[in-house]
Amino acid sequence: MTFLFNSDARRGAIFAEVFAREMPDVAFTMDAATVNPDVVRYLITWTVPENLARYRNLEILFSIGAGVDQFRFDAVPAHVKIVRMIEEGIVRMMQEYVTLAVLALHRNLPAYLAQQRAGEWRDLPQPQAASRSIGVLGLGQLGQAVLDRLKPFGFPLAGWSRSPRRIEGVTCYHGEPGLENILMASDVLVCLLPLTQDTCGFLNAELFAKLPEGAALIHTGRGPQLDHAALVAALDGGHLCAAMIDVTDPEPLPGDHPFWSHPKIILTPHVASVTQPKTAARAVIDNIKRHRAGLDPIGLVDRSRGY
Amino acid sequence: MTFLFNSDARRGAIFAEVFAREMPDVAFTMDAATVNPDVVRYLITWTVPENLARYRNLEILFSIGAGVDQFRFDAVPAHVKIVRMIEEGIVRMMQEYVTLAVLALHRNLPAYLAQQRAGEWRDLPQPQAASRSIGVLGLGQLGQAVLDRLKPFGFPLAGWSRSPRRIEGVTCYHGEPGLENILMASDVLVCLLPLTQDTCGFLNAELFAKLPEGAALIHTGRGPQLDHAALVAALDGGHLCAAMIDVTDPEPLPGDHPFWSHPKIILTPHVASVTQPKTAARAVIDNIKRHRAGLDPIGLVDRSRGY
Repeated sequence: MTFLFNSDARRGAIFAEVFAREMPDVAFTMDAATVNPDVVRYLITWTVPENLARYRNLEILFSIGAGVDQFRFDAVPAHVKIVRMIEEGIVRMMQEYVTLAVLALHRNLPAYLAQQRAGEWRDLPQPQAASRSIGVLGLGQLGQAVLDRLKPFGFPLAGWSRSPRRIEGVTCYHGEPGLENILMASDVLVCLLPLTQDTCGFLNAELFAKLPEGAALIHTGRGPQLDHAALVAALDGGHLCAAMIDVTDPEPLPGDHPFWSHPKIILTPHVASVTQPKTAARAVIDNIKRHRAGLDPIGLVDRSRGY
Repeated sequence: MTFLFNSDARRGAIFAEVFAREMPDVAFTMDAATVNPDVVRYLITWTVPENLARYRNLEILFSIGAGVDQFRFDAVPAHVKIVRMIEEGIVRMMQEYVTLAVLALHRNLPAYLAQQRAGEWRDLPQPQAASRSIGVLGLGQLGQAVLDRLKPFGFPLAGWSRSPRRIEGVTCYHGEPGLENILMASDVLVCLLPLTQDTCGFLNAELFAKLPEGAALIHTGRGPQLDHAALVAALDGGHLCAAMIDVTDPEPLPGDHPFWSHPKIILTPHVASVTQPKTAARAVIDNIKRHRAGLDPIGLVDRSRGY
């Protein structure tokens, strides 16, 4: 019974240590070339390998990342469970990044950076947190964890998901009708949605128009969810005031893309949240134990909804 | 019995409303020119007025700001109580600003901003919060409130003050011997000290040299505490990696000052925390009630230590 690690060797070495200590009955290997494919029960990877069918006894295909939009589901036999990465390292980093982004936009950081470049010392109007509503699109583990971290600051908080949720201290909306409501109420909109057919191109001109005048956008979902030209138009037209963007399409952005030099955009190179190998290895081991006990792994993908 | 408001009319109008509702037995005026000086018992101001002696029955001199370093104590008769501004609006804004600054420096924002300007898409090494120690100089209400807001992120926290303190979850140091210890342990150093003779020029080359290699500075105290040239030298020499600076000397900075264009400095124009008139008026009214009941006002200044 073997676990095949098909990702970078640096993180693999840390996975190997944790497996040796905490799951010694499962052989751990990073060597796809020499492993006997028949013994591979578990595989972790970023993209689905070409030759997946050779692992005839594969039970679980783990994504090394939080998303599974990079997986071609039709290449994965129906009996193989597909599992997203949910681990405390990813969650903690996303809490940090979104809190940083919300506070940066709340406290006018893009405008102050522009003033610094221009040598201008001038204080700007500063609404208080109680009058600045934050809306989070996506209420999975990441969305909920982010809202939890924002709570002490006193912003009115709202969230939106496909199906109904109840979260203490958060006004929850769901489905198509709820979308209008959360957009109207979001002075800062945070996108944490998974990438699916439904969310591709989701952040577009029509959606921006429904946000309050002067709203701001934080995008930490996936690049193809954002209509890049529509964002630039909404910023240049003044309906949106600023954005902090971590994911783009393509990545890296081409050298002549307007995001690089836009004075109202803070751009980071897809670094909001990265799988942390030590905590990820523990999460994977816990999921293997659950699977062996007949339970669904945490983060089991529903192929019909795409995440 | 009269309260004289000697500051900007916009905030004064809000003070007037709160006084009319919550302390109707005290007359409120913003008109120093026509008020009978003999009836003025309470005065709020940013700087001590030239003609303070005319208010013969003055009992309390309130600062409109968190600090009193702008007051000339020798111009204030010994029997008049001097009171700093401690109110929830100032506290909340400082929590926001310092959390923003800590997360910005923790998540390499100055370097990512430089990469954005250069059109460079590259992820940088990212230590986890558990291995990044934050040290706060100054453990008054602001320092304690800031530490409280940082707790959920998992940074090891330390604080330093003149006299001993105990704060749950924070390693507390005090006095001259404790200073060395907190500096050695601070990957991000936050200055929230009051400006006194002892703290003027406090953030200097000698202090920076005691911080760990690659440390970062957040300065939200007062401008004259920072040796500006020493900060630039420490950043250019590489011992410090970045800084977020809200207060300078002078303010505004002159147009040719190196902070404006330094790639490792984020500069904001003394906006970290501003007295919020509604909550400030309530805090002042509470203090007048305490004073009338024979209690010391909250924020009563000890003239011998200077704050």
